[in-house]
Amino acid sequence: MIIRMKADASPEDVEYVIGRVRSLGLKAHVSDDHGQTLIGLLGQLQALNQTALIGLRGVEQVLPLRAPFRLASRELKPGPATISIDGVTIGGTRLVVMAGPCSVESPDQLMQTAWAVKEAGATVLRGGAFKARTSPYTFRGLGEEGLRLLAEARRETGLLIVTEVMSPEQVPLVVRYADILQIGARNMQNFELLDAVGRARRPVLLKRGMMSTIEELLFSAEYVLSHGNSDVILCERGIRTFETYMRNTLDIGAIPLLRELTYLPVIADPSHATGKASLVRAVSRAAIAAGADGLIIEVHPDPASALSDGAQSLTPQQFAAVMEDTRQIAQAVGRAV
Amino acid sequence: MIIRMKADASPEDVEYVIGRVRSLGLKAHVSDDHGQTLIGLLGQLQALNQTALIGLRGVEQVLPLRAPFRLASRELKPGPATISIDGVTIGGTRLVVMAGPCSVESPDQLMQTAWAVKEAGATVLRGGAFKARTSPYTFRGLGEEGLRLLAEARRETGLLIVTEVMSPEQVPLVVRYADILQIGARNMQNFELLDAVGRARRPVLLKRGMMSTIEELLFSAEYVLSHGNSDVILCERGIRTFETYMRNTLDIGAIPLLRELTYLPVIADPSHATGKASLVRAVSRAAIAAGADGLIIEVHPDPASALSDGAQSLTPQQFAAVMEDTRQIAQAVGRAV
Amino acid sequence: MIIRMKADASPEDVEYVIGRVRSLGLKAHVSDDHGQTLIGLLGQLQALNQTALIGLRGVEQVLPLRAPFRLASRELKPGPATISIDGVTIGGTRLVVMAGPCSVESPDQLMQTAWAVKEAGATVLRGGAFKARTSPYTFRGLGEEGLRLLAEARRETGLLIVTEVMSPEQVPLVVRYADILQIGARNMQNFELLDAVGRARRPVLLKRGMMSTIEELLFSAEYVLSHGNSDVILCERGIRTFETYMRNTLDIGAIPLLRELTYLPVIADPSHATGKASLVRAVSRAAIAAGADGLIIEVHPDPASALSDGAQSLTPQQFAAVMEDTRQIAQAVGRAV
Amino acid sequence: MIIRMKADASPEDVEYVIGRVRSLGLKAHVSDDHGQTLIGLLGQLQALNQTALIGLRGVEQVLPLRAPFRLASRELKPGPATISIDGVTIGGTRLVVMAGPCSVESPDQLMQTAWAVKEAGATVLRGGAFKARTSPYTFRGLGEEGLRLLAEARRETGLLIVTEVMSPEQVPLVVRYADILQIGARNMQNFELLDAVGRARRPVLLKRGMMSTIEELLFSAEYVLSHGNSDVILCERGIRTFETYMRNTLDIGAIPLLRELTYLPVIADPSHATGKASLVRAVSRAAIAAGADGLIIEVHPDPASALSDGAQSLTPQQFAAVMEDTRQIAQAVGRAV
Repeated sequence: MIIRMKADASPEDVEYVIGRVRSLGLKAHVSDDHGQTLIGLLGQLQALNQTALIGLRGVEQVLPLRAPFRLASRELKPGPATISIDGVTIGGTRLVVMAGPCSVESPDQLMQTAWAVKEAGATVLRGGAFKARTSPYTFRGLGEEGLRLLAEARRETGLLIVTEVMSPEQVPLVVRYADILQIGARNMQNFELLDAVGRARRPVLLKRGMMSTIEELLFSAEYVLSHGNSDVILCERGIRTFETYMRNTLDIGAIPLLRELTYLPVIADPSHATGKASLVRAVSRAAIAAGADGLIIEVHPDPASALSDGAQSLTPQQFAAVMEDTRQIAQAVGRAV
Repeated sequence: MIIRMKADASPEDVEYVIGRVRSLGLKAHVSDDHGQTLIGLLGQLQALNQTALIGLRGVEQVLPLRAPFRLASRELKPGPATISIDGVTIGGTRLVVMAGPCSVESPDQLMQTAWAVKEAGATVLRGGAFKARTSPYTFRGLGEEGLRLLAEARRETGLLIVTEVMSPEQVPLVVRYADILQIGARNMQNFELLDAVGRARRPVLLKRGMMSTIEELLFSAEYVLSHGNSDVILCERGIRTFETYMRNTLDIGAIPLLRELTYLPVIADPSHATGKASLVRAVSRAAIAAGADGLIIEVHPDPASALSDGAQSLTPQQFAAVMEDTRQIAQAVGRAV
Repeated sequence: MIIRMKADASPEDVEYVIGRVRSLGLKAHVSDDHGQTLIGLLGQLQALNQTALIGLRGVEQVLPLRAPFRLASRELKPGPATISIDGVTIGGTRLVVMAGPCSVESPDQLMQTAWAVKEAGATVLRGGAFKARTSPYTFRGLGEEGLRLLAEARRETGLLIVTEVMSPEQVPLVVRYADILQIGARNMQNFELLDAVGRARRPVLLKRGMMSTIEELLFSAEYVLSHGNSDVILCERGIRTFETYMRNTLDIGAIPLLRELTYLPVIADPSHATGKASLVRAVSRAAIAAGADGLIIEVHPDPASALSDGAQSLTPQQFAAVMEDTRQIAQAVGRAV
Repeated sequence: MIIRMKADASPEDVEYVIGRVRSLGLKAHVSDDHGQTLIGLLGQLQALNQTALIGLRGVEQVLPLRAPFRLASRELKPGPATISIDGVTIGGTRLVVMAGPCSVESPDQLMQTAWAVKEAGATVLRGGAFKARTSPYTFRGLGEEGLRLLAEARRETGLLIVTEVMSPEQVPLVVRYADILQIGARNMQNFELLDAVGRARRPVLLKRGMMSTIEELLFSAEYVLSHGNSDVILCERGIRTFETYMRNTLDIGAIPLLRELTYLPVIADPSHATGKASLVRAVSRAAIAAGADGLIIEVHPDPASALSDGAQSLTPQQFAAVMEDTRQIAQAVGRAV
């Protein structure tokens, strides 16, 4: 159950309501939603008489939530929510496309890609500075040098930056350079890291774990939201199944299903989902047709020489073709790029 | 390796080539592709000198196939293939939509659905007379009575009929009533049944098993094709994964991947893939956007009272909305309904 | 709900009870359990007053079953059940070991294997005459010739025979040669075949589908049981998962779980579960330790030249070592080989 | 490829060899294995002439490793390795049993459990102070207070302590209290954390991720080993599959398979693998029979009131029964508890 306080409720009102909640033997979990205080009630709720709370001063609504995740639930906000960052809106009529190399490798590689994806219509540049790699013997990223190159690319092209953060102690560093903090699939249940980005005042791109259920994804979003950071973008990037022809299996149904369950924006990652450049175009079309709010796509000026994920990276030309297709499909579903 | 004989090769030419193949210590597997004889070579092919075969009279082509499936491979026919049945073409620019109830339940239920789906734009009526059910205690279909009702619906509406056949001995019976023989997901590796429909001269709708890889799907198609029945339509209907919010997980990437691997038409079944009526619309759009040649959708005049699969069945009104969406997406990808 | 009639109930008693069931608006499903008639009740059971049935003449028990599968449920028979075939008891204190080649290939290969496995302690000879193969281009078995060789091996060695039956029309043929009819994993939901072996008066070895849940396995057993054939042996043979190092993943927990849910005997197939001969020994020990009633193992005199499943076949020497281990573990869990 | 230096090689020898490796255009990855320096070679190894390295002073062996993981590979050390901690040896003839509550909840609960598991034969006490929980609204552990209680339990009972560490910055804290650092399944690919425990001089219990392949598990071990921490214990705790009757599916074959691939000790966690207390006993027997070096089991004085994982926790009495069974099976496979 969640109590939504009015926008003009005073701190005293909030304190008073919290006191009442506690006097009923419950815990109060306080968070903020764009200026409105939300008070989550934890404990034995079955016997609770809501009328004891509805009439209190400053209370706008008492929500009897059925979903086990609360702050992410569509029961809380009818949604969809939009997240605005420096003039780019995520979750609205206009789709967002994030594109760039798997890893930041060099100034040339990054700038060349950045200009190419901007020209084709992307508004966010992706690129890994810290890389989560299965083997310790593969390239693990340029680290802070990579972050500096991303910031440089933003200055020159005006693109927003999304990049992965891999541990709580990296958060302050990455926040200095990135517009959106990415939580990678392998860290979707790194709860200390979720707490840390929840406390950061920066939008979060939360990728679904490759073997995580939709409910677990929403619970991980809940970790971030519960610290008062309400700008969470979900990303379907394929799940692990028995099929081995592709790297993963994009769960296309998850896109409309997340629409039903949550108000948070949802984008798709056809690069990791398929692992094959030749399939990215068709799967991008499918994701937009299913209702995704955008895409995140790996692009490299020379995929064959990429230090990571070359097999699934598009050339700038292939990416431009994907953008063209995306425009067609977007129009067919009443949206635009 | 496969030898494609010329269209005007004589039976003697064919015999002579087969003799040569055998004299090389190989087995010859003979089949027919719209009037052209195909001779598949089985055995120790590594050391084979193709030039010994290329020059023979009547030989059009010697194909060094790399794919383990042969007759279904795009290496054999650049494709895509089209299958024409009584004026309906499957695999061409125009999409095919098959729709109808999970089970044939009564004359009223079937005729009402048939007229509704026809009006909305479907050209094939689906409906189960023999039902594969997990539990022996649930409705297993009307049997031959169901087939008669389907034939009656065809006479009245002009829709083609697709219905499931569940055992080799049912094939002659079902062939008398159906335009397309459906192999259900649970029978995708019922090899005796695949042999039986391969010998029948009737198009086959082969549904991917919920536990089957794409390669296994193509091998099952190969069983049918190897008997000379080249009219196989593949159907992606969702695979079983760890996710439980939906009945299955539609493998959207399988659609463009099958396009790369085979010339056979591919349709999608969003009803079984999701198991939830509310998700069928978005997933239908996605499948068409990904390049599917059509859809097969469960429609029932009153889903709540359906004897099977009610939760995933659309009402006629919902189905009409799906068709409307499908038209929009089809146009965006250069196709039509 | 199931009514168990007394062993000495007359046909008139049974008829009378069935009539009462029907007069309550329910369907009656009649089957036989070693001479006692079982009447399963289907329909709206919620409102049913059991006392209307408990007092009727000939009624021994009215069982309010909670499990969705009924005849297989431990609620029906406390079990465990034993199945006796020509002096071999399956499901008792003594473990049963079935062993032999994947495919029957030749008289020599079969007889050599049969004597070897008998000497090592097996009491049932396995061997495929009809083979379910993913590709139509691989060896599909010797057919009836293979069955004749199996019968010959039985005559000479006294071993019982278990072999796969792949379609309803093969049942009468296979029944002439085999002591136990095997339903392969790919046919676990071939419901027409389950009906057919249910009608045959011959014990059935039902292998779990590679992507079937335990509940689905029990429902497939239910198909066989519902025709009055109560001699069903379940077989855990590994399920399909994302892991690719092994062919499948043996679901070891399924063995004690099936013990809780059903009274039917359960054996394990470490050969198909692992796909690697080097792992069969350890997994066999594990299955027995977990409570399995026996094992089914692939043995070939020369695995490297086997026409199918060579990588997972044991040599006779390796098999003897497995038997030695099995004896040790059997003793540790209070059983014997 | 890995160069193993002799135990008495001088630092100058090591430097010289590293120089030669670099002069060949390769990178050198240096680590320590119980006093012997290992130099891993990274780069284009195909063309490398090993004889250029074998004769150098101080070189004991040049190992042409085939496995992609190197330091964990059985090709490097024939193994099995043993890890000794305060008189407890893991990986030898004697099995290790770790037992205790999922979460440390209170002094009473912990001490009661500690004495009970010690009496039954466990030598390591498990208990979570920091808990990885899917939902932020569930109990997340007592934190440092929990660690203090564990240390207190060690002082009183003499049991070793294993407890989970969830982020790099927690490592120094947990190292002060724990004998073995546990990496939980959700953090198996938290690479920053793996680096951090690799740098700590403390044995690591690395649980397999529920979505991770065996190769990925070994690569994660490689992260720890590559920092010179060679005391890694692997733990099979069940993987996520389509089956839902149990919480996870214990991959029993992984135990002998890991034996083939690595020299590191392997234990099994039947509590998380099954999620059902009633199945823990049989699955424990199976794991030992398959060759595991030990078990980790959840025990709680009153499972019904546990703050986490109650359904899978054993009572002390049930745990004593498991230990009794384990002794029987251990003896049957030539080991002891």
